[in-house]
Amino acid sequence: MTFSTRVAVRFGDCDPAGLVYYPALFHYCHAAMEEFFAVRCGISYPQLLSEGIGFPTVSVSAEFSAPFVYGDEVEVEVWVSRAGRTSAVFEYRLRRARDGRLCASATLVQVAMNIVERRAVEVPARLRRAFELGAD
Amino acid sequence: MTFSTRVAVRFGDCDPAGLVYYPALFHYCHAAMEEFFAVRCGISYPQLLSEGIGFPTVSVSAEFSAPFVYGDEVEVEVWVSRAGRTSAVFEYRLRRARDGRLCASATLVQVAMNIVERRAVEVPARLRRAFELGAD
Amino acid sequence: MTFSTRVAVRFGDCDPAGLVYYPALFHYCHAAMEEFFAVRCGISYPQLLSEGIGFPTVSVSAEFSAPFVYGDEVEVEVWVSRAGRTSAVFEYRLRRARDGRLCASATLVQVAMNIVERRAVEVPARLRRAFELGAD
Amino acid sequence: MTFSTRVAVRFGDCDPAGLVYYPALFHYCHAAMEEFFAVRCGISYPQLLSEGIGFPTVSVSAEFSAPFVYGDEVEVEVWVSRAGRTSAVFEYRLRRARDGRLCASATLVQVAMNIVERRAVEVPARLRRAFELGAD
Repeated sequence: MTFSTRVAVRFGDCDPAGLVYYPALFHYCHAAMEEFFAVRCGISYPQLLSEGIGFPTVSVSAEFSAPFVYGDEVEVEVWVSRAGRTSAVFEYRLRRARDGRLCASATLVQVAMNIVERRAVEVPARLRRAFELGAD
Repeated sequence: MTFSTRVAVRFGDCDPAGLVYYPALFHYCHAAMEEFFAVRCGISYPQLLSEGIGFPTVSVSAEFSAPFVYGDEVEVEVWVSRAGRTSAVFEYRLRRARDGRLCASATLVQVAMNIVERRAVEVPARLRRAFELGAD
Repeated sequence: MTFSTRVAVRFGDCDPAGLVYYPALFHYCHAAMEEFFAVRCGISYPQLLSEGIGFPTVSVSAEFSAPFVYGDEVEVEVWVSRAGRTSAVFEYRLRRARDGRLCASATLVQVAMNIVERRAVEVPARLRRAFELGAD
Repeated sequence: MTFSTRVAVRFGDCDPAGLVYYPALFHYCHAAMEEFFAVRCGISYPQLLSEGIGFPTVSVSAEFSAPFVYGDEVEVEVWVSRAGRTSAVFEYRLRRARDGRLCASATLVQVAMNIVERRAVEVPARLRRAFELGAD
């Protein structure tokens, strides 16, 4: 079962063309991932970081099929489609909340990293289990 | 022949793990593209927008092989690898300036858009020619 | 009666020192103002802009008495303390949600502007009335 | 003698009204301060942080007398007007580079902070001397 959360498009996220500046879409994905950890993984992302572990992104594949504009609310769905030993594949789907239109999809490979020593580590077991629930 | 420009990693671009927050890497790519238009295409991106044309991103494929950290300077190389009728494929390579290490690569499909009517348009001929020089 | 809304501190809002990068605090204020328009003024900020009117900031006075850190939730209170003919004084108070500690205060002068012609205009009457309710 | 540096207004810094989103102006100030440390203080801001010291902002007073728009280049002047025992008053003047028009002024109180223990410390002597040169 997937998890989703809502993000309001903010004035400062939009560019002079009136569209959401595309790097901000990745900020929305990250915000949704932060919520996903708190709600689905039994540990908030801030807590995880305080234990020295983070999930930086190493690979991005994304399609933006329709723009978000100022005034839109974004429904961001997030789940883990594959949980490896030291990394996980996070899937993001961004829909326009008012009509459910899929506007953006992103697949990110994120690695478990010891953020103090900046080296890859194994995905903690409790997280792997939580990730796999999302992958069903 | 490709074009490259330098971008300093700013304090505010970095996250609590001390690494550049990955959406900021796309902001660097966009900044480099803006310079590319001014230097290589005979029209600045602001001028292009004032004529009602922009190049929003519709597809992203990126690999982040090594992190940028605060204090780094980024050498961003940008060129057009394919210029289509209504879109162009922009290539970005981000290297750590001090040692030339390739830390990030991104391939973006960007469409020519009438930003007033928000519809795809043909890539203007003069831009297509400039893009093709970069593709050699 | 004042209006308040909650903003989660996001990973990307924080700097390598682990604190919210202070420009992001103003982004939080702007987000709260956007909510304030929707809830208290009978017109959302996007709608207002689509009618050609915005409220850009011309003066800022702010005190940051305690830092926000990653993991905090921010309670942002916003009201108009003075509604002039062509401008309004917006007050913002940012508290740490978990204990109510006042961490930041900001007083902004924001002018009513025709955003197409970029010139000051009178604050629309219905907005002035809504602003004055907040000033009581 | 003051120090100044140039910052290009980027597409992503601008809002749907076509103006620089005002929090971005503070990002420009911070970028200029970072350059100021490297050029005038004998230590880069990243180096200073790696020694555990930063200068977070505790007070802001700013006037935005004219907007910056996309396509502008900003000349940011920065100097220290007062160097106290544990804090310094940084002055910023932002001019439109093409005609020198003063568009924004900001006065920031920034405290010397041990960023590991998050407590105020004395401004290191070598920095105080560098700051005072700017204050002449």
